[in-house]
Amino acid sequence: MLDEQQYLMLPGPTPVPDNVLRSMAKPMINHRGPEFKQLIEEVTEGVKMVYKTRNDVVILPAAGTGAMEAAVVNFISPGDKVLAISIGVFGDRFAKVAEEFGAVVEKIDFPWGEAADPEVIRERIAADRNREIKVVLVTHNETSTGVVNDIKAIREAVGNHPALFMVDAVSGLGAMNLETDNWGLDVVVSGSQKAFMIPPGLSFVAVSPRALRVADTCNNCRYYWDIKAALKYLEKGQTPYTPAISLYYGLREALRLMEKEGIDNIIARHAVYRDMVRAGVRAMGLRLLADDKVASSSLTAVLAPEGIGANRIRKHILERFNVVMAGGQQKLDNVIFRIGHLGHVRHLDLLAVLAALEIVLVELGMDIELGQGVKKAQEILLNKGVQ
Amino acid sequence: MLDEQQYLMLPGPTPVPDNVLRSMAKPMINHRGPEFKQLIEEVTEGVKMVYKTRNDVVILPAAGTGAMEAAVVNFISPGDKVLAISIGVFGDRFAKVAEEFGAVVEKIDFPWGEAADPEVIRERIAADRNREIKVVLVTHNETSTGVVNDIKAIREAVGNHPALFMVDAVSGLGAMNLETDNWGLDVVVSGSQKAFMIPPGLSFVAVSPRALRVADTCNNCRYYWDIKAALKYLEKGQTPYTPAISLYYGLREALRLMEKEGIDNIIARHAVYRDMVRAGVRAMGLRLLADDKVASSSLTAVLAPEGIGANRIRKHILERFNVVMAGGQQKLDNVIFRIGHLGHVRHLDLLAVLAALEIVLVELGMDIELGQGVKKAQEILLNKGVQ
Repeated sequence: MLDEQQYLMLPGPTPVPDNVLRSMAKPMINHRGPEFKQLIEEVTEGVKMVYKTRNDVVILPAAGTGAMEAAVVNFISPGDKVLAISIGVFGDRFAKVAEEFGAVVEKIDFPWGEAADPEVIRERIAADRNREIKVVLVTHNETSTGVVNDIKAIREAVGNHPALFMVDAVSGLGAMNLETDNWGLDVVVSGSQKAFMIPPGLSFVAVSPRALRVADTCNNCRYYWDIKAALKYLEKGQTPYTPAISLYYGLREALRLMEKEGIDNIIARHAVYRDMVRAGVRAMGLRLLADDKVASSSLTAVLAPEGIGANRIRKHILERFNVVMAGGQQKLDNVIFRIGHLGHVRHLDLLAVLAALEIVLVELGMDIELGQGVKKAQEILLNKGVQ
Repeated sequence: MLDEQQYLMLPGPTPVPDNVLRSMAKPMINHRGPEFKQLIEEVTEGVKMVYKTRNDVVILPAAGTGAMEAAVVNFISPGDKVLAISIGVFGDRFAKVAEEFGAVVEKIDFPWGEAADPEVIRERIAADRNREIKVVLVTHNETSTGVVNDIKAIREAVGNHPALFMVDAVSGLGAMNLETDNWGLDVVVSGSQKAFMIPPGLSFVAVSPRALRVADTCNNCRYYWDIKAALKYLEKGQTPYTPAISLYYGLREALRLMEKEGIDNIIARHAVYRDMVRAGVRAMGLRLLADDKVASSSLTAVLAPEGIGANRIRKHILERFNVVMAGGQQKLDNVIFRIGHLGHVRHLDLLAVLAALEIVLVELGMDIELGQGVKKAQEILLNKGVQ
């Protein structure tokens, strides 16, 4: 069984379309030559389309956490006061990176499974009368809980306070609406192995003119992550250090697919995934970690039923049906399992996975009727149409 | 013409074998699952074989410069005195990265085109009676000049001085002999897009137990580059952040090829490339930047003939024959061109490129007899046999 292609239901890496995989098998080219110039210019424009921005965008050869580090070292100086809003593991991580590089971090934590309350942010910002806060860090989609923050409302809560507004949108961008320019987001980080449907290895940072001015005086240590250097090289169609050329080929193909479908259609499609999975899982009698109002379109966190650990379900569905689901992280380990539905996901695969989950739950002793969850998901698909 | 496959004669990215390219087109897998565990364990062992080491090796999702930064932030604390030996652009870069992260760098420069003199290092080390120098930085193969340093002799010159010995072997490892363990090298950095014959995007750091003890007390800022964290994850067959899975697939295939050929045979093959190119170019009446005794097997830097700039030759050979050669960097711009012969290079391609160069030189007005350079290279090949 394990040699068959897997149902990869992770919040990243996500399935990669065949033509994207094949496009990566092209021979190497000179990364200082005209072909690469054309390539980097096309993909940079494509990434901007997904970001809904005209700001500068830099492509880094790194995982998403590398881009978070780049965001920190270019725009936060040691000693800067940073307000970090955390609703889970990745919010904590953004805060930790800033702290490691000398920021004085004040963290506002919300319970895992809930979204950040913009009113709490508004009050904290209003209390900062001396404008000591230099940067606000926030997560768009919290991958550890399947909760999406209302970035627009949080940005409005910060209002005209001069702090830079930096968003970790690694697992949310391209799956849920994020309007970099309309909402006034200064620094937005994302990664290739999520909604961008290419293998891991590239990450993206969008940077506002205001943020670039901050970078000019930022005195944190940086060499590899220097975004001003990257932008200078981008002007001549290059990168400061050798770029991951194969992944650029893949990115070009993936962006062409995304452009053809249209970013707002992509977002609508992910909302259908979310609704299918949530309706299906609920019909099996399972509880969801996140409330409907804040539910992520990228992934769904499901509470394991009493007496059956989440990891036992994951192990069983992997061995039995080659379905890979993510576990809970840290204090949610064995409490939840997470179903990723991000990027290149087929609606029928979701139905198949829900059907497999039903069988597994019955085999593990739950008293449920087969087909009920699948039916609810089918109804969603029937009503909304396949987008 | 430009749509044909190029003759990519760069010191990186280097040509990638077809089966390596094809191996990268496999679907994504869970980077926290058993398949990836098997994959990372196999490639880590393979990389150690190339490094000739039993030390720990970490694979980073980054260009070579990223691995240089990792070497700096894990083993050099701000204020540490660092002796940086530079024979060109990349020696300067290693020094600059250390400086950016707070090291007090003393640089010993040798003229571009020459190797470092171990005696000079020996004297400087002997003069450090209070053992203030914490780290020695040195380049194995200097990509900007095509000169290889005698790492063994330089290491011996440092003797039992306790400074960590850190080597940038990005463009030399796998093309020329480097014995990490036998020579006592503490930190050795390399990259995928060179002798490893895979696309850019991965880099490697080998770390001695002594260096790991230094990392324990090193107080430089690091998050993404934390090598101790990477080693902790490696124990369970994982990486701290999502790895570039496709490049791992490619690396596995490339390492299988390398293992089959044998590392010492690979090194001997590269020496033949070097001798062919040097003999061929000399027979055309051109001068070489590096002396035979210090000539790199990875690339050859050629001085452009009087009156014809190096960049004109590069432009002409690209347009006429789709041969991509590298230019000179910084003060060597337009003075030299560089012929990369690193990794997956076919001997007959070298003959073809030399033939193309002869034609181009004639077209640009040089008075040379066609075929002389090719003949000298043929003779080398005939005498040494194809390895």
